[in-house]
Order: sequence, then structure tokens, then C-alpha cells
Amino acid sequence: MEQPLPPPSDMSPAEFRKHGHAVIDWIADYLEKPDKWPVLPDVRPGEIRGALPQSPPLRGEPMEAILADFQTLIVPATTHWNHPGFMAYFANSATGAGILGEALTAALNVNAMLWRTSPAATELEQLTLDWLRQMLGLPSEFFGAIADTASSNTLYALAAAREMHPELRIREQGMAARDDLPPVLIFCSEEAHSSVDKAVMTLGFGLSALRKIPTDDGLRMDAKALAAAIERARRAGAIPLAVVATVGTTSTTAIDPVPAIADICAREKVWLHVDASYGGTAAILPEMRHVLDGCDRADSLVVNPHKWLFTPMDCSVLYTRRPDLLKRAFQHIPDYLVVSGSADVVNLMDYGIALGRRFRALKLWFVIRQFGVEGLASLIREHIRIADRLAEWIDADAEFERLTDGQFSTVVFRHHPAELAGNALNEHNARLLEKVNATGEVYLSHTRVRGNYALRLAIGNIHTTEVHVRRAFDLIKEAGGVHS
Amino acid sequence: MEQPLPPPSDMSPAEFRKHGHAVIDWIADYLEKPDKWPVLPDVRPGEIRGALPQSPPLRGEPMEAILADFQTLIVPATTHWNHPGFMAYFANSATGAGILGEALTAALNVNAMLWRTSPAATELEQLTLDWLRQMLGLPSEFFGAIADTASSNTLYALAAAREMHPELRIREQGMAARDDLPPVLIFCSEEAHSSVDKAVMTLGFGLSALRKIPTDDGLRMDAKALAAAIERARRAGAIPLAVVATVGTTSTTAIDPVPAIADICAREKVWLHVDASYGGTAAILPEMRHVLDGCDRADSLVVNPHKWLFTPMDCSVLYTRRPDLLKRAFQHIPDYLVVSGSADVVNLMDYGIALGRRFRALKLWFVIRQFGVEGLASLIREHIRIADRLAEWIDADAEFERLTDGQFSTVVFRHHPAELAGNALNEHNARLLEKVNATGEVYLSHTRVRGNYALRLAIGNIHTTEVHVRRAFDLIKEAGGVHS
Repeated sequence: MEQPLPPPSDMSPAEFRKHGHAVIDWIADYLEKPDKWPVLPDVRPGEIRGALPQSPPLRGEPMEAILADFQTLIVPATTHWNHPGFMAYFANSATGAGILGEALTAALNVNAMLWRTSPAATELEQLTLDWLRQMLGLPSEFFGAIADTASSNTLYALAAAREMHPELRIREQGMAARDDLPPVLIFCSEEAHSSVDKAVMTLGFGLSALRKIPTDDGLRMDAKALAAAIERARRAGAIPLAVVATVGTTSTTAIDPVPAIADICAREKVWLHVDASYGGTAAILPEMRHVLDGCDRADSLVVNPHKWLFTPMDCSVLYTRRPDLLKRAFQHIPDYLVVSGSADVVNLMDYGIALGRRFRALKLWFVIRQFGVEGLASLIREHIRIADRLAEWIDADAEFERLTDGQFSTVVFRHHPAELAGNALNEHNARLLEKVNATGEVYLSHTRVRGNYALRLAIGNIHTTEVHVRRAFDLIKEAGGVHS
Repeated sequence: MEQPLPPPSDMSPAEFRKHGHAVIDWIADYLEKPDKWPVLPDVRPGEIRGALPQSPPLRGEPMEAILADFQTLIVPATTHWNHPGFMAYFANSATGAGILGEALTAALNVNAMLWRTSPAATELEQLTLDWLRQMLGLPSEFFGAIADTASSNTLYALAAAREMHPELRIREQGMAARDDLPPVLIFCSEEAHSSVDKAVMTLGFGLSALRKIPTDDGLRMDAKALAAAIERARRAGAIPLAVVATVGTTSTTAIDPVPAIADICAREKVWLHVDASYGGTAAILPEMRHVLDGCDRADSLVVNPHKWLFTPMDCSVLYTRRPDLLKRAFQHIPDYLVVSGSADVVNLMDYGIALGRRFRALKLWFVIRQFGVEGLASLIREHIRIADRLAEWIDADAEFERLTDGQFSTVVFRHHPAELAGNALNEHNARLLEKVNATGEVYLSHTRVRGNYALRLAIGNIHTTEVHVRRAFDLIKEAGGVHS
């Protein structure tokens, strides 16, 4: 019988140094010219998978070969979110400090489920989120915790909202097959993020429990319609549980009237969750602080440093003034996780679904310190300035039309030649987008504004300058056949 | 008025190189001697937070200062999961290849929500999980996706199970306030992980919908009791929805009789989810393949490469033969995420709560390639061998007693001086554990076996050798006042 291999060691410190330095050098080169590759790769579905071995290697391979495959096979087949022409969805950035923070997080590899399993990770998360809270001007009673994404955090907020009503005993009795449980309803605007729908499906409310409130001309939630809907729900014997307001909707970056919504929620004793995952970051600027008006009265608020705060994926922060209820929704301690003294400390496992918790605060702490609050503010200010410039160019061009009036760094518009309307106009813009994205120079996304197909240009990448946005606009004009 | 700062650039490539090389060198030193620090830090709650500035810096700070603080304030206040004496919970490892993979993931910073937003990340995840599937001997129809933790993946599996019953319309109608929805029940053993309880709470089933099946002498689910419970539920008009079986329970690493459970689930048309998050990895060894017997008939199975496959946190894999139902539970596509051709490709956002998806497959691909399947197998084999040695030492010592008979790398036992019994015996072992953990040389955790306090020693760290485990046992003997 063949002898089994002796157990290998991990790579030696010398090997780690060698490969690690090579990795750092590659990253430095990559970030120096993130536009070396087309922003959207020219690959067909299945092409990458087909180019790789279909079975794992039996024997270990040299790290050089692995890194070479990364460079020749993976990188060219990647959509380059670091490319200055990446202006789709919400553009974000991997900054040097954030990348180094992530490398150290991976090296320490702590699981901060309990305070005890990593005091530093637990307390640095609390401290860094308190810093961010101060930067955003949110009240000191807000408790913060990091999760992967805003989708998770919105779900957590709605789960906590259920615990506002201990008499419903949802944690114990669930929502099914109960004669004693009236319909429990969630409210958001027609323009709220799909994560609200997903949370409502997942938590067992069902999509039919979600009431989508109409929006005004600026695609902001109509607060009067909300008040009326809550009143109707009460009259029908339902329990209005929570309202999700948005500061910076994904489609058009509209800002719901949070002060008016907060009034209604306070009066009606309904949980107010604010999705500020993109827009909230702008409140770091004194002149933009107003975008979070009313949010000091929210029960919870989500903001994503991995969106517009130059922190690598994933880092989404949930603030809540009711950590007790969040904990009630998610705390469940088996015998093997009972630790003496544990009741007096924050144990991050109590505030969400995941038990295991990466040390995500480290990268955010690095980013805030390396740029400083003023540095971060001036980056965000510059993005807003560039977006305003783009808006001016669009407004000055008779063939272009802005479809909404955003306050942030995202511009929603379309090419509107006089001869086109209706579906033909929509199709024209869809084709235009494809043409522009095929250049490899820029990547824009789209949305629909009251059914109208619209181009969506989001500035959030640290490498993006006015020159890149001007180039994007010129490419759009060219693709639209405009020669103005 | 003071001029605002001009927007800063990110650190220059030269700066990134300098700080990056320093970070790599620090990690190399750290991993060379992960026992330089006590495994459990000597810190009081609040100490770390109190030692740091309570407000964020206005101006950016030099990266040198940030890294110095990391080394002097964060590292000493960290529980060292890399320490060879870390034998608590499920020990895991950050290996060089995995750390470098994470650094590159942070640098690329793709969000693989759609195939199009990162074809490479999407396809490499599919490919790497197919490699892992082959390594575990699971059937080729299993589709895999990576989430953060097993807790999330178990929740996803139970959400998919609801979609086995489209007639219940839970996605649309939810579980609340319905006259037409019979009680919907989930079954697991008394020894199943707390994530099942948490999932059942979160999904709106309520804890009362969870039926905990008794276990046999080996703390394995009693399949006959399961069959009887399902039959009782049917007679009472309830819908038995899903069974969660475990391969390697967290408390004692017991293996539920999956073949018998799979028979019952097939007959009763009940979703079978297997939590193999720790134990599943052992199936990479041909001689341990049997631990997954019957799992080829599961509807879903979770296994965590971040537990015992030398991959940094977080990386938990959900396999399912019903990706269609998983997708039905979680797919919700707003206008701004509609992309042509998207229906023909895998879009990772469709398979869970999170919309944003890190490129987590990269580190796993690196680890599998760098060690090779045989290398990984021999590491796991060695951990099992050391655990068997510890079991022998315990069995040979009249004052020690094993409380269960594990097949993996975790040993559950207690010190049992002849004069102690009942609660005094429990307290003796709790004190013993505290004493041992206070040495800073080892970190063990505990559990309860049928109410009896037990020490729990888990081997899963790549740095842990027989010498460390022998030392741990000697420390335990010393702490117990044993002089054999």
C-alpha cells in the first residue's frame, strides 16, 4: 500500500514573504493603472470555467503557478470595479488602507462571535462605529454593528421591529397558523430597495404584507399617503409594524421626507428603519448633513462604508437605538457558548443571523484614520461636484434630459432626440447603453423612472475624476449619434 | 472662510508597496510564532476601547502610526485563533495561500451580485465548489454557493424548503394571519446547532415549530423517534417541512444516522438538510468518506471550508440539489438589476439574502491548489490521529473519562476524581477549565453532555501538533491536581 503523505506545513515565513511581496507589488501595479483592462471583460458565459481544470489537483502546486493563473485567467475575466470608468450601480473603491486592513484581518482570522473570542475585534467595532456615528451626526444612543450587506441589515431591523410587540410572541410562536395574530404590515415607498421585499419574504411576512406607498414628483415617499395607509391598516385590524424610509434610493437617489415620516411613526408607534446605505455617507459633509434630517428619531438606520466610504466589500453598518430588541430577535445561546461574565459585554453573535464574525472593523478603522474625516469629506464633496458638472452638461444639451434631480453623486438621464418617444425612446437608450458599455472605457447601468428607461451614472470610485466623467458623456453622445 | 482641502488621492503605488511589504513582513513574523502572545489576552471589558481616541481624526494619519497601533494595541488584545494552543470551539486556520487570496479579493473588490458584475468571481465560485464537491464525494447534481456562515446557509436551506410547497404561497402570503395555513414544522435533534433555532425564529416559523428529536446513547438523532414525530405531526394536520440532520454536532461531533433519516424524508417528502459544517470536511479522506453516507440523498448540505479546510473566515458552502427552489426563495429582481442574457447565467445574488457578494472563492481556490487534495487530506488525517492519541491518554488515566466517542478531531471528556459527583464534579471541571485557560498556553472550551459539564478539545489549527495537545493534557492534569 502506498504510504500517505506526511502532513504538510503551511508555507514557510520565507515563502510567505516572497509570495506576499509579489502580491503586494501586483496590487500596487494594478491600482496604479486600474484602467489597464476594459472595465467590462469580453467573455462569454462558461468561458472562464471552461478554461480551468475540471477537477482539483491531487498534489500541491507552486504558489507562483497559482498567482500566474490569477493574473492571466482571473483578472482579464473580471469586471473592474476599480476602473475609473466604473460608474454603474453604486461605484465603490478598494483603497490601500482598506486592502491592508483586510489582509491583516485574514491573517489574524479571529471569529469575534463572543467578546472573549476576540476582545479587540469586538471593541474596535464598537469604537469605530461610534466614530462613524459622530461623523454622520447621529445621536449617541445609537448602537452599531457590522454585517455583510444592507440587505442583511434591513432584514435584521425588521426582525427587531417584531420584538417591539412582545405580546405577539413571534419569536416563540412564529407567524404561521395562528388565529390570534392579525396581519402584520410593513410600509416602504414604491422606490425602496428590493432588499425590503426580500426581507419581508424571508421573515415570513410574505410579499403581500408589504405596502408600497406612492411617491411624489421627485420619487420621494408621499408622507400623507403613508399616514392614510397606516390608518387604513389599523381600521382593518392589522398591525402596522415598520416603515422603511430611504435616504438615496438605488434607482434615482431620492430622499424620502424622513422628518414627516418620523412624526407619523412616533405617533403610530411604528418602527422606523432608514435605508441610507448609499446616501447616508454624504452627511459627513457639514453642507450635506441635512440629508439625514429626522434620522435621529429612527429606530434603525443602515449605512454602507463599502459603498461610498472607500472601504472594501463587505462592510455594512446597522445603527439602532434598540439593541435590546435586535438582541431579542437574534440571541440564542447554546450551552457550549455560555461564558461567565458574558452578559456584561457585547457579544456580536447576538445581533444577527451569522454566528461567526470576521474582524471587519479593522479596515474601516484604517480607512477613517488614513484619510481623516476631512479627507473623506473632500473626496465625497468632489464626487458631488463632478456629478453637478455632468448635470450642467446634460441640461445645456437640448438632446439630453435629466429624469431626476439628485443631491448626491449619481445622475439619472437619457438621450432624447426630438423624433423619438415612448418605447422607441426606451429602446434607443438601451441600445445606447450597450454601445457605450461595449467600449470597455466606461460601465454605466440603467434604471426605469416611472417606466421610462434611463441611464444611470454613479460616481463613487476614488480613481474617477471629472475627465473620466466628461469622457463618459462624450462616449454617450457619440453612441447616440449626437454631434453637438 | 477656510478653504476645504483638495480631495486626497489614495496612497501612491510606492507608498502602498512600502506599507504592504511591512504588512506582509509582520504577517510572516506573526505566523512564524503564533504562540508569541497568550492565546487568550489578559484584558478587561472596555480596556481596548478606553485606550483609543474616542473621536475620529480630522486629518489623515501616517500609515506607519496606524500599523504601529495595530501592533501595540490590537494584537495584544486579540484572542489568537492562530495559536497552536487554540483548541476551543472549532479551531481553524489562516494559511498563507488563504491570506494572500483575501488580499487579492480586497484589491479587486468586485461585487459578484450578477454574473456580469464579475464573471470570474461567479464562475470560479461554481468551479471551486464543484472541486470541493468532488473531494467530498457528493453527487454531481449538487449546486454550490458560498455564504458567510453555516447559520446563514441553514436559514437559506429552510427558506428553500418552504418553496417545496408552492401551494402554501409563503413567499407571497407569508405565514401570518392565515386561516389556510396549517402548522409548518421543522425537525432536528436535541443536539443540533443553535443556528437551527435561530433560523426558525428568523423565518417566522417560531421556536414552537421546531421539534427536537431525542438522541441515542451516542447523542445521535433517534430515527425511529423522528419517524414517529413526523407521523404525529401529519395526524395533527401539520406539514412536516424539513429535517435538519447533523454530521458532527458542535457539542460532541456526533453523527446523526443520515441514511435512515434520508429514507424517512424521501418517504414523507420532507426536505433533508444536513449540517456538516465541521464534520463534512473529513469526507475528503477515503477512510472517512462514510461520514457522509446518505448525504447524497439530502436536499441540501452545508460545509465550512473556514472551519477545517485551512481557509480564512468567512467561507461557508451550501450545496443543494434544488437550486431552483433556493432561487425561488430569494430571487427578486428590481428594474435596475435586469440585464439581458441574465436568465441564462448564474447570478449569485439570487441564492441568499445578501445582494452584494465578495469574491470568496478565490481564497478557497488558492488553498485547494496550494495544498492539493492529498495535502489537505493528510492534514485532516493528522488531526484525527492526534485526537485519537489524546483519547488513548484519557482512557489510560483512571482519573479521566471521555464522555463521547468522536470520529473527528474533537475530544469531549472530564476530570473525574473518585470523590466527586454531580454538581461538585461539574464545578470542579469548570474551575479546571478556567485555570487551564488562564495559563495563556491553551484555550479549550466546554459543553454539556446530558447535563454533565465537559471539557472540549478541538484540533483544527494547522500549527497544532501532538506536542501541543500533550502539553494541553498535562496542563489539564496539573490544574486538576493529578500526579499520575
